[in-house]
Amino acid sequence: MQIGMMGLGRMGANMVRRLSNAGHECVVYDIDPKSVAALVAEGAVGTASMEEFVGKLAKPRHAWLMLPAAITGAVVEQLAGLMEAGDTIVDGGNSNYRDAVDLAARLSAKGVNFVDVGTSGGVHGLERGYCLMIGGPDEAVRQLDPVFASLAPGGDKKAPGTAARGYLHCGPSGAGHFVKMVHNGIEYGMMAAYAEGFNILKAANAGKQERTADAETTPLSEPQYYQFDIDVAQVAEVWRHGSVIGSWLLDLTADALAADPALEQFGGRVSDSGEGRWTVKAAIDTGVPTPVLSSALYSRFSSQGNSTYADKLLSAMRLAFGGHIEKPHKQD
Amino acid sequence: MQIGMMGLGRMGANMVRRLSNAGHECVVYDIDPKSVAALVAEGAVGTASMEEFVGKLAKPRHAWLMLPAAITGAVVEQLAGLMEAGDTIVDGGNSNYRDAVDLAARLSAKGVNFVDVGTSGGVHGLERGYCLMIGGPDEAVRQLDPVFASLAPGGDKKAPGTAARGYLHCGPSGAGHFVKMVHNGIEYGMMAAYAEGFNILKAANAGKQERTADAETTPLSEPQYYQFDIDVAQVAEVWRHGSVIGSWLLDLTADALAADPALEQFGGRVSDSGEGRWTVKAAIDTGVPTPVLSSALYSRFSSQGNSTYADKLLSAMRLAFGGHIEKPHKQD
Amino acid sequence: MQIGMMGLGRMGANMVRRLSNAGHECVVYDIDPKSVAALVAEGAVGTASMEEFVGKLAKPRHAWLMLPAAITGAVVEQLAGLMEAGDTIVDGGNSNYRDAVDLAARLSAKGVNFVDVGTSGGVHGLERGYCLMIGGPDEAVRQLDPVFASLAPGGDKKAPGTAARGYLHCGPSGAGHFVKMVHNGIEYGMMAAYAEGFNILKAANAGKQERTADAETTPLSEPQYYQFDIDVAQVAEVWRHGSVIGSWLLDLTADALAADPALEQFGGRVSDSGEGRWTVKAAIDTGVPTPVLSSALYSRFSSQGNSTYADKLLSAMRLAFGGHIEKPHKQD
Amino acid sequence: MQIGMMGLGRMGANMVRRLSNAGHECVVYDIDPKSVAALVAEGAVGTASMEEFVGKLAKPRHAWLMLPAAITGAVVEQLAGLMEAGDTIVDGGNSNYRDAVDLAARLSAKGVNFVDVGTSGGVHGLERGYCLMIGGPDEAVRQLDPVFASLAPGGDKKAPGTAARGYLHCGPSGAGHFVKMVHNGIEYGMMAAYAEGFNILKAANAGKQERTADAETTPLSEPQYYQFDIDVAQVAEVWRHGSVIGSWLLDLTADALAADPALEQFGGRVSDSGEGRWTVKAAIDTGVPTPVLSSALYSRFSSQGNSTYADKLLSAMRLAFGGHIEKPHKQD
Repeated sequence: MQIGMMGLGRMGANMVRRLSNAGHECVVYDIDPKSVAALVAEGAVGTASMEEFVGKLAKPRHAWLMLPAAITGAVVEQLAGLMEAGDTIVDGGNSNYRDAVDLAARLSAKGVNFVDVGTSGGVHGLERGYCLMIGGPDEAVRQLDPVFASLAPGGDKKAPGTAARGYLHCGPSGAGHFVKMVHNGIEYGMMAAYAEGFNILKAANAGKQERTADAETTPLSEPQYYQFDIDVAQVAEVWRHGSVIGSWLLDLTADALAADPALEQFGGRVSDSGEGRWTVKAAIDTGVPTPVLSSALYSRFSSQGNSTYADKLLSAMRLAFGGHIEKPHKQD
Repeated sequence: MQIGMMGLGRMGANMVRRLSNAGHECVVYDIDPKSVAALVAEGAVGTASMEEFVGKLAKPRHAWLMLPAAITGAVVEQLAGLMEAGDTIVDGGNSNYRDAVDLAARLSAKGVNFVDVGTSGGVHGLERGYCLMIGGPDEAVRQLDPVFASLAPGGDKKAPGTAARGYLHCGPSGAGHFVKMVHNGIEYGMMAAYAEGFNILKAANAGKQERTADAETTPLSEPQYYQFDIDVAQVAEVWRHGSVIGSWLLDLTADALAADPALEQFGGRVSDSGEGRWTVKAAIDTGVPTPVLSSALYSRFSSQGNSTYADKLLSAMRLAFGGHIEKPHKQD
Repeated sequence: MQIGMMGLGRMGANMVRRLSNAGHECVVYDIDPKSVAALVAEGAVGTASMEEFVGKLAKPRHAWLMLPAAITGAVVEQLAGLMEAGDTIVDGGNSNYRDAVDLAARLSAKGVNFVDVGTSGGVHGLERGYCLMIGGPDEAVRQLDPVFASLAPGGDKKAPGTAARGYLHCGPSGAGHFVKMVHNGIEYGMMAAYAEGFNILKAANAGKQERTADAETTPLSEPQYYQFDIDVAQVAEVWRHGSVIGSWLLDLTADALAADPALEQFGGRVSDSGEGRWTVKAAIDTGVPTPVLSSALYSRFSSQGNSTYADKLLSAMRLAFGGHIEKPHKQD
Repeated sequence: MQIGMMGLGRMGANMVRRLSNAGHECVVYDIDPKSVAALVAEGAVGTASMEEFVGKLAKPRHAWLMLPAAITGAVVEQLAGLMEAGDTIVDGGNSNYRDAVDLAARLSAKGVNFVDVGTSGGVHGLERGYCLMIGGPDEAVRQLDPVFASLAPGGDKKAPGTAARGYLHCGPSGAGHFVKMVHNGIEYGMMAAYAEGFNILKAANAGKQERTADAETTPLSEPQYYQFDIDVAQVAEVWRHGSVIGSWLLDLTADALAADPALEQFGGRVSDSGEGRWTVKAAIDTGVPTPVLSSALYSRFSSQGNSTYADKLLSAMRLAFGGHIEKPHKQD
């Protein structure tokens, strides 16, 4: 079928490629003409303005947006102004599901459908296919089925429902981004579980290391039990084969550790992209305890330097009640 | 090669089957003669006492134990008393790695090798193969290589090292169980990440539910954003295909949810088997922050009813400073 | 000075008493005429409608509201409709600070001041005085100084600023409730710190207790170190005297434990009143790691039964990968 | 009564002063003769060797040790070698309660009593008195009652039991240090609750600050709600007066913030002294969930730089699945 794609960054461009490979006609637009040109060279239909983009789409139009969350809302409203009842706008970005709920309500007044699609698969999606979590009105979602089927990994076509082929209509507008939000919250938790575990493995030789003997350093009580030099890269590899904790994230981790076991190229500042925050806020609104997902999020906040004031305050208290002089940070 | 297996529970018996299928000669022993008989019927060499078990093993002997952690230590010492310098005892159970460090030291005085093997794969290992994390002296581990290779899933034989085939010599005695311990700590964290996430999905319709309006119930501030009836079983299935959080645990979870989406057969009391505790204690000894792994462990403790006294104390404080009357627990 | 008080529940009525004792003229209103009559009997000026209430206030009027958060917003708007430029409405309840920001903006269009006052002290405030955290326009806050001074505990009148006397103008509208919100977040954390600690003390005799010996129960590894029968009520008392963790909350806890060491009257369902949730959400918005405050909140959620689905899912996973049969909950 | 004090550091010396002021005869010893001389000048009986120290004590002897935990065990055994049946050794340091259990068992063979005293009060104890948590045999503890009564803050002498006067016999040897251990665990939790809360207050102006607009920085969604410049020092002060979270720790915090609101003199590296670790390990052994106490401990570990490897691994994973380039740490 014909599909419009707007926003031709890494994700958008790869999705156009995967759709074109599957035989769909892709009309593409981006504010950067070079991004358009690159895909035109690969067979897409290029456009130079939002108006031209809309004009080249056959009715009922289907326009898929892959834009930064910060600008998605405004672009959706602008685009909707150019569209007609029966047309459909798809937001495939990492937007807050609340925006989808609100946008869908506004667009429905005009008869334009809003479909939100949470997309997982990252830079590997072009090859592996994307896992799609979809929210929106039934008819609009039905029309887009060929697109979803091509973007998704595929799989058992005889399985009941589409989930086994990697895409799922989760509910009304907002449901897709809601499920994707929780997906990313889980992702944070899994990543942190691995990271904490490997950090323990790395510390397994603590008993071999000389330890500062000062009043501000807790002695290691039984050093005989911490004498292991564990090859963490090899451990990551072995866990991929037959263990209960095998996963795609572990596959990637094993590759990363094999290439750079000491992770020298990284400094340890871990960004968070919003979904983890929204997940925990949704949990709090609904009274769901999420200690693991929250802990994973806070570790990222701390890595960004945001615990420093609290830490200074703890040092101030320790000085005040116990006369403890703060020990300086290790110099690298 | 020839291998002795002692402890023919679910794990031990299946390992004998996998080894026999690969052509190894298995001498088996268990305190329950029926367990021995069952495997003899499948081709194993049965024995009726520990002495007979040791007597039927060719020198240098290799005896693999799959016993409950609580009795492993005593049995190892008893067995070592019947063995000779150059023989090897393998502990494949879920023992504390500290016991392995101590046992190895005691056995080495007599020249008997102690090899600790952390084994992951659960009830699926017979078919999929077991992921093996091995600690012990080089020569003993080298002798056992054919056994390890057959128990493990196998895989790329051209890959350097054995990790890509699912087994790894991690270090001296204790290193195998240490790595397995951390493996299980990570497992707890991953499981909790999924469980918390699915719990949020289940609560996504909170805005549709009637909410008690009393002073002891926080109102849901924006019910319009919690109107989704998510089919969690379908979501588990779709995440298996192309998403970043795909894993073997998710595969099993999707199956379990497909069979029983409401999880009616479970009450929610989650046991812990020791490794999660040891992991966190090792992290604390070495000063490694493990908020995710700990949170996962504490959720299990709470599910076992161990937070009740603390909770009562909180209610007592709330009554004392604010006159808040405790609300009774929901009746099921 | 003259002050109007609307909402004569436990908190509002006691504040009227404290203000009357200090010589202020209190005009009072409540939808329940009995609550009005009770305070009239103690010397307050009673009114029978919101209109009469406003009518009896001298200009510029000062009306203080102590209402449930759920209805505060609507009542403020209604009341503002009866007031004039230069009048001031004070919200002394446990409202979300965001409502204060929004209400202040709306009321300022009409020239009516909005002052938000976070109030701590609970049922003991009548006697001890209330700690007041104030947000609002400078001039309105200045006018109310005599009221704040009388409600607060008082203290060193020579100290610079008012904080040492128990009240503080924290910033523009919303700042008072923001500071109170964080105050309550800290309160949750402190309460949980004590509760967890006392729970450990109570478990200090674990080594004396018979322990189920089944595959689903982790054995207590070194029972000789858990042989203490600690008198937690006495410990709470001793910590009040000279220790680093002395506090007013501990004073109350010691009293509660002295009266009922086993806390038999409580079931362990701990409500949360909103501020703890808002605190964590504000922390997440601003990227501040708050593992302690969040953990305290989640323990309350769990005590409310909200972790059950997640716990069931963990049991389902354990069955799936390891064949572990869930152990039933203890019967009380 | 007569009491021997060994270890004349800050804590030991101040305890001698408090005991001397109360009329007790203090025999003192330290490996540093200058520490001995200083207290002799204030009226104590000095000694120059452990033998002389023991020789000057009247039978039954009472020797109180205030030594670093790392050497306490060895010194106790050495000292016990010089003592006789009926004598008593008191360990008032921050030792692991397990050492007390073990030492008491060893000393009892010789008839020497071992009493462990957890001591809280820090540098303020000389003036305020020390809160004492005592473990040991009844008779030995009874003999020392005059010493405990003088070291403790005192208080209501008519109250039943000694807890209201600041000291408590908690149980057999080890119970004192066990209770002190949990005390410090709670202390960590309370400190972190305050520190996290003040950190949120400090971030309350996040909406005013220019925010990097890049793909690796989550935008602040509703900046209008984060426009407060909170004077945290003033807030700490106001909370001391009438609020639910008033405490001695808050008193000290308010003083520290008044003197240095930006806490410029601190870098934010927070030491931990062992008790927090032991507390959590005891909780884990006994299956008690302690998310708050653990989180407080882990924040200290992170402040010590121990999460860096885990953080690097998270960055490596994010690069691997999403192509996310790590953002460098802020330069100070």
